[in-house]
Amino acid sequence: MTDEGTQAFVPGHVTGFFTIERDDDPTKAGSRGCGLTLTDGVTVTVRPAEESTCYLDGTSIEMEPVERVLDALNATARVTAESGIPIGSGFGVSGAMALGTALAANVEFDRRLSENELITIAHGADVQSGTGLGDVVAQARGGIPIRLEPGGPHDNELDGIPRRVRVEYVTFGDLSTPDVLDDDPERITEAGETALSRVVGEPTLTSFVYASRRFAREAELLTPRVRDAIEAVSEAGGEASMAMLGETVFAFGTGLTDAGYDPQVCGTHSAGATLR
Amino acid sequence: MTDEGTQAFVPGHVTGFFTIERDDDPTKAGSRGCGLTLTDGVTVTVRPAEESTCYLDGTSIEMEPVERVLDALNATARVTAESGIPIGSGFGVSGAMALGTALAANVEFDRRLSENELITIAHGADVQSGTGLGDVVAQARGGIPIRLEPGGPHDNELDGIPRRVRVEYVTFGDLSTPDVLDDDPERITEAGETALSRVVGEPTLTSFVYASRRFAREAELLTPRVRDAIEAVSEAGGEASMAMLGETVFAFGTGLTDAGYDPQVCGTHSAGATLR
Repeated sequence: MTDEGTQAFVPGHVTGFFTIERDDDPTKAGSRGCGLTLTDGVTVTVRPAEESTCYLDGTSIEMEPVERVLDALNATARVTAESGIPIGSGFGVSGAMALGTALAANVEFDRRLSENELITIAHGADVQSGTGLGDVVAQARGGIPIRLEPGGPHDNELDGIPRRVRVEYVTFGDLSTPDVLDDDPERITEAGETALSRVVGEPTLTSFVYASRRFAREAELLTPRVRDAIEAVSEAGGEASMAMLGETVFAFGTGLTDAGYDPQVCGTHSAGATLR
Repeated sequence: MTDEGTQAFVPGHVTGFFTIERDDDPTKAGSRGCGLTLTDGVTVTVRPAEESTCYLDGTSIEMEPVERVLDALNATARVTAESGIPIGSGFGVSGAMALGTALAANVEFDRRLSENELITIAHGADVQSGTGLGDVVAQARGGIPIRLEPGGPHDNELDGIPRRVRVEYVTFGDLSTPDVLDDDPERITEAGETALSRVVGEPTLTSFVYASRRFAREAELLTPRVRDAIEAVSEAGGEASMAMLGETVFAFGTGLTDAGYDPQVCGTHSAGATLR
């Protein structure tokens, strides 16, 4: 234990499409799908404390996945997170905070767990809190993860699209994950399965963004502002889709810039979550 | 296709201990064990060419795993590698060249394969060439991979020690991998299983280096110079072991420096192999 605590960086994760896979066991539940991990992400610092608290960008917050992770690790800690990505807009901030807390608390409290055990704890916490279905396992892998089977690392199956790409994004607002998931899960899962088949058949960036756009349309998740931005990028000759689940549009290369937007710019992240 | 070609970086991998797992199917064969991926590694560039050639640090070489990967991808290319790690000394250079070639050729020749497919091809090429048993899958994951089950990504099972650490190493000479493996594979596998049990039970750096030292002794792989260096680090209060299979000693922190050696210095690599 040190006064400075232990730090972990977890990449953001924008999901292009997904399925909803329920299971009584949270380490088996989750989703299949595909997304981009981002060089923009969340830095989490864990320090032992008298009582557990959680701060995001300097503001005290209630963050159920973080509380669940600390409970699982039997750790009482002050968790401070600095986020380089928007909150509640489809970037996996809750998963990042859960995973970063697990990795850093394991060091800080000398819990001697393995990577898979820590990822399992963070994934289960995110699922049980209703804040995410597949961000954690994607954020632990890095790159452009394809989630072939749901759940934590002992149950799931991952692959990846072996590419690196510049990513631009704009966020118009937030969407409530639980509300959207409860609306019509069957429609989402059916559209997600179609999209996944396409990307498994051809694991390329083009195939991913096509499958993601069709998913957003078929799952009826597009908002007017998101649709407008995707169309504008397309008219400017680029490729864009919607980040699930947020009112966020991501594009490859200079897609949003070319369409006249003033986007955030980052890239796909080549590593999974890492200790600093 | 571009004149500059496509580049990939693959981390070096020092194996602390391993088992030998034979199988007629090279994607199922390999080894279990544990090692460190390193920020020192190999940068591989692939360019289309009239005939396939391979260069390592400016010198034309025959590299069977690279030829096998190019064949599998139906690619005729000039492969140039710049290695920041010693050749033939237990750093997984052959695996790095096979994996880097697979990742870069997939882009350069637009082969549209997935990460797992490329890792499988590179792993099979390394195994079939007799140049490595488990480096490729470790180098694809990054960090400090624990190989719980052998083979490529469709068959194996990986975990990791969730730590980052400064690594020092010295190399005294090379060992021939095939010769050592043929000498007494049962003894190696038995010692490797004991070591793996220890690290699975306690996935920490200390446990890894203890298990590695005991493995090196029990498998009778220590050379006099390697034993002397490990003992010198120990007497100086540090932790070191032998890189399998090379006449190489690695230590954590400043272990070799404190023992009076003039080591190379790097760290564990937080990412697996990546496109540049």
